[in-house]
Amino acid sequence: MSPETVSSGLAGVIAGRTAISTVGKEAKRLTYRGYSIEMLAEQASFEEVAYLLIYGQLPSSAQLREYREQLQSLRRLPEELKPVLEALPGNSHPMDVMRTGCSALGCLEPEIDLEQQGDIANRLLALLPSLLLYWYHFHHQGTRIGTPTEEESLAGHFLKLLHGETPEAIPRRVLDVSLILYAEHEFAASTFAARVTASTLSDFYSAVTAAIGTLRGSLHGGANEAAMALIDRFQTPDEAEREILAALARKEKIMGFGHRVYKEADPRNAIIKDWCRQLAERVGDSCLFPIAERIEAVMKQEKGLFPNLDFYVAPAYRFLGIPIDLYTPLFVCSRVAGWAAHIMEQRADNRLIRPTAEYIGPEPRDFVPIGQRG
Amino acid sequence: MSPETVSSGLAGVIAGRTAISTVGKEAKRLTYRGYSIEMLAEQASFEEVAYLLIYGQLPSSAQLREYREQLQSLRRLPEELKPVLEALPGNSHPMDVMRTGCSALGCLEPEIDLEQQGDIANRLLALLPSLLLYWYHFHHQGTRIGTPTEEESLAGHFLKLLHGETPEAIPRRVLDVSLILYAEHEFAASTFAARVTASTLSDFYSAVTAAIGTLRGSLHGGANEAAMALIDRFQTPDEAEREILAALARKEKIMGFGHRVYKEADPRNAIIKDWCRQLAERVGDSCLFPIAERIEAVMKQEKGLFPNLDFYVAPAYRFLGIPIDLYTPLFVCSRVAGWAAHIMEQRADNRLIRPTAEYIGPEPRDFVPIGQRG
Ligand SMILES: CC(C)(COP(=O)(O)OP(=O)(O)OC[C@H]1O[C@@H](n2cnc3c(N)ncnc32)[C@H](O)[C@@H]1OP(=O)(O)O)[C@@H](O)C(=O)NCCC(=O)NCCS
Ligand SMILES: CC(C)(COP(=O)(O)OP(=O)(O)OC[C@H]1O[C@@H](n2cnc3c(N)ncnc32)[C@H](O)[C@@H]1OP(=O)(O)O)[C@@H](O)C(=O)NCCC(=O)NCCS
Repeated sequence: MSPETVSSGLAGVIAGRTAISTVGKEAKRLTYRGYSIEMLAEQASFEEVAYLLIYGQLPSSAQLREYREQLQSLRRLPEELKPVLEALPGNSHPMDVMRTGCSALGCLEPEIDLEQQGDIANRLLALLPSLLLYWYHFHHQGTRIGTPTEEESLAGHFLKLLHGETPEAIPRRVLDVSLILYAEHEFAASTFAARVTASTLSDFYSAVTAAIGTLRGSLHGGANEAAMALIDRFQTPDEAEREILAALARKEKIMGFGHRVYKEADPRNAIIKDWCRQLAERVGDSCLFPIAERIEAVMKQEKGLFPNLDFYVAPAYRFLGIPIDLYTPLFVCSRVAGWAAHIMEQRADNRLIRPTAEYIGPEPRDFVPIGQRG
Repeated sequence: MSPETVSSGLAGVIAGRTAISTVGKEAKRLTYRGYSIEMLAEQASFEEVAYLLIYGQLPSSAQLREYREQLQSLRRLPEELKPVLEALPGNSHPMDVMRTGCSALGCLEPEIDLEQQGDIANRLLALLPSLLLYWYHFHHQGTRIGTPTEEESLAGHFLKLLHGETPEAIPRRVLDVSLILYAEHEFAASTFAARVTASTLSDFYSAVTAAIGTLRGSLHGGANEAAMALIDRFQTPDEAEREILAALARKEKIMGFGHRVYKEADPRNAIIKDWCRQLAERVGDSCLFPIAERIEAVMKQEKGLFPNLDFYVAPAYRFLGIPIDLYTPLFVCSRVAGWAAHIMEQRADNRLIRPTAEYIGPEPRDFVPIGQRG
């Protein structure tokens, strides 16, 4: 590509090196630190994956036990964060609350020294669910919940805080798997934003805050909420088919489909769809899952487009009883592991990320003093 | 450049189109919407420049009057923001407070509709100084200041809120000029971060919050504070010379020098240096300015490097009585005009900004179940 050519959206442009993950163009080759996503989703827990991403290798049993204990011990909110969360309106978008809470934590527990970065990553991993659900219950139930729980996994902890009761094994595992799938995805827009922020030698919280704000958009993490809102509009598969055809005719985008890098399929989709089907059977659903499958079929037939991870995550989370506007925040709770790995990697071999632009504005012109402008 | 080549830090890579500004490689051709920075700094006010950036053309007298009145009317903090600012510690870095305050405002006054974007830009322009100085006085003086003032310019407003008295004409004008110089700079890292965030169709506040966090780093906006801290270390020009030579020998970077795009000089430097000299004479300085000039001479001689805008802004702000840790926040108060213009431009012709990476990590490897890992 000549330097004069603008690649719209930096599509296909290599913006740096990474040792963290690969995202293949075809429906394969998603790996975290060399391990395929299929193996990780089948055999690992989210905490193992977070450890793998942040420290570069799988933990031993002893290391994993210790890591889980460490994360558990970090779940208590600092007292000073509570008035901030209480002051944010109950009808805020939870992603705005996550972004603000993360930023406020950067005021309360600032990064003074680069050596703190691993600790800050773990603190965020442990605390983001607490922060979200403290705010949530304060405004929706009027209660100030305690945020530590006995649950040793993030998935269990989240469900326990959300529903107030110990989750069953299957819901806990499905949420765990979804977190594994969400944990890392190379130079996705939010990760790239975190790296741009880190590249000025800004602090860890600034980079994560930027990433949260970037994930929020419907072309990125926000797609899971948008997909649910879409599926919810239909009563039957036939109605869904009619409406999707009409939307495509109006050139609308269907959220939860397509991908910048994958061209044939999203390898995470088969995994989450399988779990979603099991959950549908478990709760006796005969509506959402068939509608989702019909939308998938129509999109394939009409546009050759495939569902990405966000599409079947949506009904899966519904079956877990998770409110729709917590879907993208859950994505944050997981992806913060990947962001952390990328921030550390960027810092280890940093250069300011500062591209340039093609100018298409007015030619040089003379200034007209205000008095002569009328 | 072949797609296989990694351009470190996206240096020289065209990442998109813009009609907002040009940053020439040599010491010239910094233009905002076609007007040279020299003309703007000499003849315009910051509010005219903000209007130019956001609306694409210079305002008429009537439009400017109206615009100033609008900004003035937007300076009052929402009541709900006060507990948030009061909860953030007094020893936080003010950039962390700006980032958190902007994010919290996104909870209180969310962007529901794209048509609000111009209003949100103006609200941030008007409110960021209020937000910063409310927090500042609450924690440093123990007072809850009222944030509206009679001052019609951002520069006057800032100085009035900071010092509690009506500023004199020269300080007001120097601050105004520095804000003009800071207002816009093409695809600087913070602006690029804002565009990445906006490209996922996230909201306006998320994009500005990302930009604030990115500006904070010492390779970007944070350089003005770092430059002041550097100059403050020396008592005399000779000492500065010795120490700078020693730092260069240790391969340290000297903040406030060099630039990704400019290779010969930063055209903003001549302008701010001139004002800085006038302020030095005005306050009878015989220390800071000579030290700064000596550092400039040593850097030129040793490395062929020139001061960028941030270098002489530092002593200039010192002469205005501005505390050092408000320097980068002042940069925010101005650059938000440029960020706003870029967010709107990105949205008007959007495509997701999502590059790719060269993989340098481990080859595919087999998963070892936890029980077999020891
Ligand atoms: C993910 C996404 C942003 C990738 O974008 P991209 O690489 O810039 O691809 P484009 O938007 O240029 O799409 C290429 C073509 O496919 C179409 N397309 C892509 N995704 C589509 C979707 N979800 N629905 C309908 N059409 C879609 C585009 O309209 C375009 O068609 P055209 O060439 O006729 O104009 C895009 O697929 C999308 O918007 N998907 C929906 C949001 C989503 O699910 N995001 C989560 C990703 S994990
Ligand atoms: C602005 C800046 C980040 C641009 O970075 P860049 O385009 O990536 O340039 P590099 O860091 O690769 O610098 C190129 C060379 O000049 C040197 N250099 C650049 N700026 C320097 C500085 N401020 N002090 C000392 N050496 C400097 C680098 O060490 C490098 O030397 P090398 O080739 O021997 O390794 C860089 O000049 C810098 O760090 N400046 C100080 C921070 C600053 O003032 N930022 C505000 C910018 S408005």
